[in-house]
Amino acid sequence: MYRTNFIADITPEMEQKEIVVAGWIHNIRDLGAKKFILLRDATGIGQVIIERNTKAFEASNDLSLESAVQIRGIVKSDKRAPRGVEVHAEDIVVLSKAKSPLPLDVYGKVKADIDTRLRERLLDLRREEMQAVIRIESEAVRSFRENLYKNRFVEIFTPKIIATATEGGAQLFPVIYFGKEAFLAQSPQLYKELLAGAVERVFEIGPAWRAEDSDTPYHLSEFISADIEMAFADYNDVMGIVEDTIITMANKLKEKCSAELETLNYRLPDISKPIKRITYTEAIETLQSLGVKIKFGDDLATPELRTLNEHLKTDLYFVIDWPAEARPFYTKRKDNKPEISESFDLIFRWLELASGSSRNFRREVLENELRVRGLNTYNFEYFLKWFDYGMPPHAGVGIGLQRLMLMFTGLQNVKEISLFPRDKKRLVP
Amino acid sequence: MYRTNFIADITPEMEQKEIVVAGWIHNIRDLGAKKFILLRDATGIGQVIIERNTKAFEASNDLSLESAVQIRGIVKSDKRAPRGVEVHAEDIVVLSKAKSPLPLDVYGKVKADIDTRLRERLLDLRREEMQAVIRIESEAVRSFRENLYKNRFVEIFTPKIIATATEGGAQLFPVIYFGKEAFLAQSPQLYKELLAGAVERVFEIGPAWRAEDSDTPYHLSEFISADIEMAFADYNDVMGIVEDTIITMANKLKEKCSAELETLNYRLPDISKPIKRITYTEAIETLQSLGVKIKFGDDLATPELRTLNEHLKTDLYFVIDWPAEARPFYTKRKDNKPEISESFDLIFRWLELASGSSRNFRREVLENELRVRGLNTYNFEYFLKWFDYGMPPHAGVGIGLQRLMLMFTGLQNVKEISLFPRDKKRLVP
Repeated sequence: MYRTNFIADITPEMEQKEIVVAGWIHNIRDLGAKKFILLRDATGIGQVIIERNTKAFEASNDLSLESAVQIRGIVKSDKRAPRGVEVHAEDIVVLSKAKSPLPLDVYGKVKADIDTRLRERLLDLRREEMQAVIRIESEAVRSFRENLYKNRFVEIFTPKIIATATEGGAQLFPVIYFGKEAFLAQSPQLYKELLAGAVERVFEIGPAWRAEDSDTPYHLSEFISADIEMAFADYNDVMGIVEDTIITMANKLKEKCSAELETLNYRLPDISKPIKRITYTEAIETLQSLGVKIKFGDDLATPELRTLNEHLKTDLYFVIDWPAEARPFYTKRKDNKPEISESFDLIFRWLELASGSSRNFRREVLENELRVRGLNTYNFEYFLKWFDYGMPPHAGVGIGLQRLMLMFTGLQNVKEISLFPRDKKRLVP
Repeated sequence: MYRTNFIADITPEMEQKEIVVAGWIHNIRDLGAKKFILLRDATGIGQVIIERNTKAFEASNDLSLESAVQIRGIVKSDKRAPRGVEVHAEDIVVLSKAKSPLPLDVYGKVKADIDTRLRERLLDLRREEMQAVIRIESEAVRSFRENLYKNRFVEIFTPKIIATATEGGAQLFPVIYFGKEAFLAQSPQLYKELLAGAVERVFEIGPAWRAEDSDTPYHLSEFISADIEMAFADYNDVMGIVEDTIITMANKLKEKCSAELETLNYRLPDISKPIKRITYTEAIETLQSLGVKIKFGDDLATPELRTLNEHLKTDLYFVIDWPAEARPFYTKRKDNKPEISESFDLIFRWLELASGSSRNFRREVLENELRVRGLNTYNFEYFLKWFDYGMPPHAGVGIGLQRLMLMFTGLQNVKEISLFPRDKKRLVP
């Protein structure tokens, strides 16, 4: 180990203790007789004083911003320092010197443009704001999983190289698999359904791919999909789990990431049970009454959702019971109203975060829905055959993790959330 | 919801209570005047009695094994029944009828051959043995993550579509990425190193791909890699974390999955601190003293590891300090002995579970190691450039989850562990 203590663990009670800290030079102020260093490690930023006539002072001539260093020094409490303590350096070892000037400012509050930030991502991720985002995401997925474990879900890992498109052939990335053509999974849809048919309650947080042509703040060609699937359940049960999980996540973040949220200068939206539910039909009628030109069967795109959001005056809501034809083949129709499906989208203001439904569980229904959509039932036989083996009623949801993180961080672009985003023009870094 | 109670939640205290259960018909015994059903749900298997002259009795004529059903009935305690309770059925609704005969026996203890099992995987995964494996894996990854959170690690998601091979061009699956050639990541290696250079302690559990030509019980072309990377640390620190994490996992499994381990008739190996460490050089000398024809620089393949394991008489051990030339370019050499690297493999009996090392963190060293291996530094420039920005000393490890699960389940083949394994001949289901 290169340190005896993390910065966050240094307390005034350690007065006069000799310690070793390690981290990056976040900032230097040179007052001639003294230098003030802000040292950053995994746990935070602390102050180091270098006084003339110390071994450390000599070594400090060679310091540059973002160099990785190891500092031996004495703890002294000082009310003016962050956390009420500072370290008086005795010796400094430069472990890895950063060249200067750097192509991106880590210390400052002024953000570079997104292209520069993603090109110089290592430095960008060292900024306090991105450190906060990374910690919030880690805590978010942790509480997501914990809430599902509590509800008897098990974690699964489904295959990512697949033979057939889940929902037709569009937007797929081809893979050359031992000389054969295969594809990257757009979602774990069919596999998570099968697994619900074996172990009932499953979830997965893993990558999924869509060859998105559009370059928007809400699309990535590689994203993280948080998927839930439940047997012996319908879409209302799944909405209940989603509601419970999102509220648990928000509460955990308020509790454990308050400093990070403060760094981001962001206040989480107030979410409470029940999350508002509005049917698609009500949404259309509301929009019509507000003068929007829209009819049953039309999609609710961003402009319509913005209008709806202003009218509903709520940050988070479900739009439920979508027209059956607008949804994928595995979506179950309502028994008493077959033009409507048992489906929902979860909307944050005007952004779709999640999409779910009750699923078809009868083979003949699935075959018919495939045919209606011009899909070849033969290609899905490997999936359809399982429905002869007692597939129970089931329902599920897919949540876009990076989109959900926009709600939990206040950031505006999923490309900022993804650590190394992939889109039409980005394959490196 | 299709049920009021899970099977595991029915207790003798609920005597005479009316409940609704749902699940699959695991077995039926027809005694003429009575039928005994074993009903299986996510939580276990329970006994249902159907007596003549009930509505349920009529409905029960249509029952087939593995059909999904909903049963309303009365709880009665009975010492002879599993868990001391049984449900006396009043009504049965068949939600989804399974055809019979089934191509695979779910109830019986006799295993089909692996090809049949993987072809009929939905049924195979319903077998008690596989249910136990799935639950053990879910609990294993849960405790893996919890131990890392406790040690201040954050969870990351690295890109899976990459522009350049991590360790040369072999064994890569090409992806057609918007008309350009790209590849599926063999490991998150370079990205996790960069992230350690930004947030210090990171981990990821995610898919990785190797175009493995060989068909062995230990190889998959798509596997789950559990990765750890730490900044301001060396390979000894990482071995400490691995040791601590594996022991935590084993203890959690003993505590929470004792029933599952019993189902598998498996006793976890005794693992305690410290996990034995033997240098590669000692291993070679030991093997030589045992009459094995082997010399410094040779790989330790399965036969040699079997011999070593017999001699060491320990289930789990680290082989450390491998010849530098046998390890990837990012592996750090020992400062005082450059032909040896700061590296380790974790071995379960004769199977490599994990591989780790201290990493090179100086650009000129990395460039040299690439050249020595005949790799083009130009292709790695996107990675190398970050080493100008204060990359600290760091170290890490990659663990093969499915292999680790062999140790935690007693199974013999990673294709049984992977829910839908991918290999040279398997792309479906």
